[in-house]
Amino acid sequence: MNEILVIGSVALDTIATPVGVNKDVLGGSATYFSISSSFFTGVNLVATVGEDFPKKHSSLIKSFGVNIDGLETKKGKTFRWHGSYVDDLNCAKTIDTQLNVFADFKPNIPRSFLDSKFIFLANIDPDQQLFILNKFKHGQVIGCDSMNYWIQNKRSSLEKLMKKVNFVFLNDAEARLFSEESNILKAGRYLLSLGPEYVIIKRGEYGAVLFAKDSILSLTPAYLLETVCDPTGAGDTFAGGLMGYLSKADRINDAAVQKALLYGSVMASFTVEDFSVNRFLGLKKKNIEDRYKKFRMLTMA
Amino acid sequence: MNEILVIGSVALDTIATPVGVNKDVLGGSATYFSISSSFFTGVNLVATVGEDFPKKHSSLIKSFGVNIDGLETKKGKTFRWHGSYVDDLNCAKTIDTQLNVFADFKPNIPRSFLDSKFIFLANIDPDQQLFILNKFKHGQVIGCDSMNYWIQNKRSSLEKLMKKVNFVFLNDAEARLFSEESNILKAGRYLLSLGPEYVIIKRGEYGAVLFAKDSILSLTPAYLLETVCDPTGAGDTFAGGLMGYLSKADRINDAAVQKALLYGSVMASFTVEDFSVNRFLGLKKKNIEDRYKKFRMLTMA
Repeated sequence: MNEILVIGSVALDTIATPVGVNKDVLGGSATYFSISSSFFTGVNLVATVGEDFPKKHSSLIKSFGVNIDGLETKKGKTFRWHGSYVDDLNCAKTIDTQLNVFADFKPNIPRSFLDSKFIFLANIDPDQQLFILNKFKHGQVIGCDSMNYWIQNKRSSLEKLMKKVNFVFLNDAEARLFSEESNILKAGRYLLSLGPEYVIIKRGEYGAVLFAKDSILSLTPAYLLETVCDPTGAGDTFAGGLMGYLSKADRINDAAVQKALLYGSVMASFTVEDFSVNRFLGLKKKNIEDRYKKFRMLTMA
Repeated sequence: MNEILVIGSVALDTIATPVGVNKDVLGGSATYFSISSSFFTGVNLVATVGEDFPKKHSSLIKSFGVNIDGLETKKGKTFRWHGSYVDDLNCAKTIDTQLNVFADFKPNIPRSFLDSKFIFLANIDPDQQLFILNKFKHGQVIGCDSMNYWIQNKRSSLEKLMKKVNFVFLNDAEARLFSEESNILKAGRYLLSLGPEYVIIKRGEYGAVLFAKDSILSLTPAYLLETVCDPTGAGDTFAGGLMGYLSKADRINDAAVQKALLYGSVMASFTVEDFSVNRFLGLKKKNIEDRYKKFRMLTMA
């Protein structure tokens, strides 16, 4: 099996939504990505937490079959993020960020993880993302995320990274900032021109646009939900579903990537229905397949 | 052939966009709807203009094969709307509205128009929309649009109207206001419960959601464009393409309506590429078919 290695954050989130506030719940990009992709393939997680990180949280991640040998506990406190969706369910307002042990995250990658065929570099310093890639021989399928802060402050490192990755995941605001193009079509084409094989521009509740060399490949709306509880982690869950599906499918061509886009959307639709990763507790592969089929029906004319 | 009757406004618009300002250009809901649907079927237009309405504009509408026997010229000035998209290309800010002869629009429907099998009631006073419907024997396929003002001020008339129409077109803000539901799925279901067979919630650059009895029927993104010049009339053009296609197809079932949704999106995508109805000058049916095919490819996985 093609295993996926994900390198990112495992965090404690405090999330305010119109539904209520949840304090110190399990969060972090690597958490969402790994649990999402675990429904499709074997997953190896690399992240760092503090001594205050509850054992039950690591056990939970492990219970999805994720290999957490790369989850290091360091002296200090776990990365904490406090966000609010009270004003706008589609857009997180950061109330507080405490990087704690994540501030100088130098990922130690267990040797056995170096055989992973798929790698997802979640949103961390692009110099760190480049440093990690240097540990690998060529041939892996690599995805990455980033954010406004790095686009503004480390553009040249990000541009270097773009030449080395197959999949780039950005939301529309990030894509516009990076490309300096307000038109999403031009933004996507610009990002493609930097090197990646596929660029995925995420548009929250409005779905995603997938760009492939020479053409727009696919436009997908988001699955419509009766209840949107907490959008945290939707993007990483989406990436986890997309890369997880591809890893299992063991082929990367336009048809497979289009299918993967729908699987990513389906996984993200589950995440937002509950706080933290709660919606995945007890979720069955059959539930995923059922929603995938329903989603295909809704989006096909 | 199933002809479509459209009753709405023919106006002179002054439009400011980031690209520039265009003064007193041809606009109005009935203009956009009729020109869009003229690519599919026979169209009868009912509207009123003032003595200042340039002859070249009526000739232009007529040149698309639209029957303008119902375009009445009244003493006074033509309805004028001044809108700006300078701050946000997705959302018009009204700078000025002069209803002029449109203020007491009492549509006179030529007798020959009473045989039209399809009727589109563009956004006017719902009491007028109801009054118009009373002139017809049953059996027509009826679509209608509305707006915030009528939802807030004539809710009970609108509710009566909902029981008499097959297709309702609203944008997401209007659907939320009418239903008092922020969730779009709940909003769509509520609107369906009022009586129409199909509810179409338009989401601007993000596409549309089509609700049919018992289920969501279809989610469609908008066709992505390199250049968005002027979004005015996109909604009426969309409705014109959708109902025009259905009129030509001569059958209304879920499959036909799903196809019609894509045709509506394609027609709207042309409108926004230029000011006023300019993009339709010289447009060929083949251009529409080509974009329809491309759009299908982009949205299918």
